[in-house]
Amino acid sequence: MKILLTNDDGIYAEGIRALYLALAELGDLTVVAPDAERSAVGHAITLSDPLRVKEVNRGGKFFGYAVTGTPADCVKIAIRAILKERPDIVVSGINLGPNVGYSVLYSGTVSGATEGAILGIPSIAISLGTFEKPDYSYAAKFAKKMVTLVMENKGLPQGTLLNINIPAVPQDRIKGVRIVKQSKRAIEERFDKREDPRKRTYYWLTGEVIESDGMDDADIETLSNNYISITPIHCDMTDYEFMSILKEWKFE
Amino acid sequence: MKILLTNDDGIYAEGIRALYLALAELGDLTVVAPDAERSAVGHAITLSDPLRVKEVNRGGKFFGYAVTGTPADCVKIAIRAILKERPDIVVSGINLGPNVGYSVLYSGTVSGATEGAILGIPSIAISLGTFEKPDYSYAAKFAKKMVTLVMENKGLPQGTLLNINIPAVPQDRIKGVRIVKQSKRAIEERFDKREDPRKRTYYWLTGEVIESDGMDDADIETLSNNYISITPIHCDMTDYEFMSILKEWKFE
Repeated sequence: MKILLTNDDGIYAEGIRALYLALAELGDLTVVAPDAERSAVGHAITLSDPLRVKEVNRGGKFFGYAVTGTPADCVKIAIRAILKERPDIVVSGINLGPNVGYSVLYSGTVSGATEGAILGIPSIAISLGTFEKPDYSYAAKFAKKMVTLVMENKGLPQGTLLNINIPAVPQDRIKGVRIVKQSKRAIEERFDKREDPRKRTYYWLTGEVIESDGMDDADIETLSNNYISITPIHCDMTDYEFMSILKEWKFE
Repeated sequence: MKILLTNDDGIYAEGIRALYLALAELGDLTVVAPDAERSAVGHAITLSDPLRVKEVNRGGKFFGYAVTGTPADCVKIAIRAILKERPDIVVSGINLGPNVGYSVLYSGTVSGATEGAILGIPSIAISLGTFEKPDYSYAAKFAKKMVTLVMENKGLPQGTLLNINIPAVPQDRIKGVRIVKQSKRAIEERFDKREDPRKRTYYWLTGEVIESDGMDDADIETLSNNYISITPIHCDMTDYEFMSILKEWKFE
């Protein structure tokens, strides 16, 4: 099996190393990841600058390519220029921090898997539900299980990926796996207005992570209840329901 | 009516100026746009750097705020920090170049409107189907009509925006308006491998724009047949159809 790994925390992050070690026995791994952190880049691609690729050896078996671009760039350049053969699966992660609710739209981790899905390769994104003191061991073990499951089930539908979030609790406190939808609760954000030493104003985006939204069938609540949340995400953003209503509008 | 304008070609682009002039008579306009081009940034937001905001006067009535961030940043900071009152509608564009098919995922123009939709404001993205010698006059006129129509129809569903593409032909050659889905045809891409003067390799992403995909009910074909394409896009990326299949997988 040929596996392509990427992430948005960068090739030197702990999460991708944990993933590498866990998946190594499943087949041939190639890591193509950003040379530094690229969080919240959404599905950005680099058009106005060239990309550079550097070989990276993190010791042990870990070998990969660091790219001066986004996760979507990494998957594109891996498939179009670096790899000799198409991978059987793309795995993006393990992200430090959950990717649930509308964060899915902002997430570089998810966008690595989205790019894989666009290119017709079964793809999964995996994130750990904490920003502090991460223990990736169970998430890595679960990633391995998921890769096996995706292969056993003959992949995923064209244009669909799996967005997986793992609760950051010891394995014996994880209650199980739930297939849930993306929550539509928005993050509570604000801008912190400050003054620099030259008396010029600048702003930091800051916001409260939503721990719970009361929706049992969606990812935010599922994760906070210590279930693994799996949401199939697709790249067709059409709102089919609203199409028929829109057709009644008077355009002429 | 209070209208917020943004784009991804930057506050100095011709497209946003044409939009400004066309919408000026509808109500109070505020422009909050990137200080320079931010194309293909997807739904990126700026977390690791502060944002700066500069007032810009392009002459005539055109006044706005230039932000050192992405279109999504612009809409966030406009609503959370710059504007005294919430806008009634967000209009993003007019983009130089179409945003159809999977380009919707990469598009900064669409992401400006997506951010508006996430924040609960009716939002539209408008793009012109050419990269050369743009004439924005009809697209601007149509944008005005669409703002009026959205208001008359009491907005859009929560989390849904309209992605509008205008054919780059004289008005008398435009055949009409079609409500269509997002095409799932991928762009034909490759990387152009080059060597810099210091003999180091770099890569440019390059690709052929798809002119036609043979799908009459989708945006690519509709636009190339000289119809205005309108696609309702929503921020819920859940693949509901695949959820039931996924629930049958053996996770334990």
